[in-house]
Amino acid sequence: MWSFVSTWYFSKQAAQAGKAVLESGGDAMDAVIKGINRVESDPEVESVGKGGFLNENGELALDAAVMDGNTMKTGAVCAVRGFENPINIARAVMENTKHNILIGAGAESFARNMGIKESDMESLITDHARDVLKKAEEKGHDTIGAIALDSFGKMAVGTSTSGANMKLMGRVGDSPLIGSGFYVESGVGGAAATGLGEDIMRTCCSFRCVEFMRMGLTPKEAVEKTVILAHETIIRHGGKPDCIALICMNAKGEYAAAANHKGFTYAFADENTPPQVTEVTPIIDKDEDGPLFDGVAGYER
Amino acid sequence: MWSFVSTWYFSKQAAQAGKAVLESGGDAMDAVIKGINRVESDPEVESVGKGGFLNENGELALDAAVMDGNTMKTGAVCAVRGFENPINIARAVMENTKHNILIGAGAESFARNMGIKESDMESLITDHARDVLKKAEEKGHDTIGAIALDSFGKMAVGTSTSGANMKLMGRVGDSPLIGSGFYVESGVGGAAATGLGEDIMRTCCSFRCVEFMRMGLTPKEAVEKTVILAHETIIRHGGKPDCIALICMNAKGEYAAAANHKGFTYAFADENTPPQVTEVTPIIDKDEDGPLFDGVAGYER
Repeated sequence: MWSFVSTWYFSKQAAQAGKAVLESGGDAMDAVIKGINRVESDPEVESVGKGGFLNENGELALDAAVMDGNTMKTGAVCAVRGFENPINIARAVMENTKHNILIGAGAESFARNMGIKESDMESLITDHARDVLKKAEEKGHDTIGAIALDSFGKMAVGTSTSGANMKLMGRVGDSPLIGSGFYVESGVGGAAATGLGEDIMRTCCSFRCVEFMRMGLTPKEAVEKTVILAHETIIRHGGKPDCIALICMNAKGEYAAAANHKGFTYAFADENTPPQVTEVTPIIDKDEDGPLFDGVAGYER
Repeated sequence: MWSFVSTWYFSKQAAQAGKAVLESGGDAMDAVIKGINRVESDPEVESVGKGGFLNENGELALDAAVMDGNTMKTGAVCAVRGFENPINIARAVMENTKHNILIGAGAESFARNMGIKESDMESLITDHARDVLKKAEEKGHDTIGAIALDSFGKMAVGTSTSGANMKLMGRVGDSPLIGSGFYVESGVGGAAATGLGEDIMRTCCSFRCVEFMRMGLTPKEAVEKTVILAHETIIRHGGKPDCIALICMNAKGEYAAAANHKGFTYAFADENTPPQVTEVTPIIDKDEDGPLFDGVAGYER
């Protein structure tokens, strides 16, 4: 038995790459890395890796992370420039240092020492990304997150993102933060988030979703409850929620997704299901008024 | 009613500064900042701010974070050089940007724009720190974390650290990571962690501790359960736990602390208690063998 789920329609290619690894008995972490590498290297995906959104200085500064559900070790990098596949650096941090997170120049120097493929910075920037920056468009919540379960019962998760268009130099969102952007424990489950990082990290969405599965909730219950509580907590504390979306998977390979906005899509594949994409019906809608909890039975705090 | 708790014996001066703010009706965040500023500016404290441990390149690169329990907004900075009080930058990130985390040169540039006091880098480095680096000593888990409740019911938390001696350039631990190093929600509670960041973040200790208080556990039950589960999770996944310690406070201003090692001290003060320091009896000991859960009734997973 194996299973793979990943955020956004553009990750169908990730599900295809993940499937290739998993159906031949490969490792969950390899599936996550191979899947995410495809999206990172695709210049058409405007929020991840090559071709991603630029910061205020016109630089492509990438964040990525991985977590191994067997060892519960993580590796993450923040604001890395000149590398097309930041998740490969994140994996190297996990496997080859006693640290979990390296940022900026420290991460770049480490990557060079590890022999990870470096790219000319300009070659990673597309005309489209320059246009979006020039127009100062508000764009960029579309992190790729991927969760895999392999046939040995091992689970793994990874994330990779350019962050939002025009972000301040050095800004980091939820994607490389354990518990916020991603979390996994083999035998329990995994989760990954996408949306406005500042809103997602406020309630540690990915850790909370896995905790709900640990308590016995189904993936659907866990991920919907997580999104509702994140949304509700922000309102209760005087804020206005932006986009919050999650995918999750339990130890049986069952997956689900939830969002507080229209248009969230995700890809999935398992032994019985070829790679495909589906769209999530929002469990709650940030763009529509209405009572928060009435009608959402069973999600009382 | 007001209450203040902070990690390590050297934070008695933080409790004194926090008390001065809180007993005159001041704000919980001001108490946290003033308290932590004292420790940051004290060159005798070898793991925080001025005089802190140096990274592999002999640089002082500081991490800090704050969280406001009323708005649940956070601000954090990572690997900031040339500033004695990184927590002031973290607060400015929270109050003056739409982001939560700024790292490295981006954080430094932002701090300059905000007019935050800059220091000559060399002036922040003590002979003692150079000695410890030269001797390659394994030192440096002693983050200051502080939690305050003010007389209006607002809670706040902050952390500040140099990280471990000889850390790789760009290494970030748990201290500036929401959910791992710190978490707070007014009306529920707050927590802050100190120890090996890589071990603390693996189970998002601070968020989990606050969740336990939300579920109705006392601060003592919540913080002990958090430390035990963090320790146990690492062992269950094939690791060997290093130092893990937390302080926490609930919305009534009741505080507690727990550690998986000897020697953890913390400071506290409230309306009825002058600033003082106490040492924690380990709830479990990383340096001693023995059954993990037998004899620790009520902490089954």
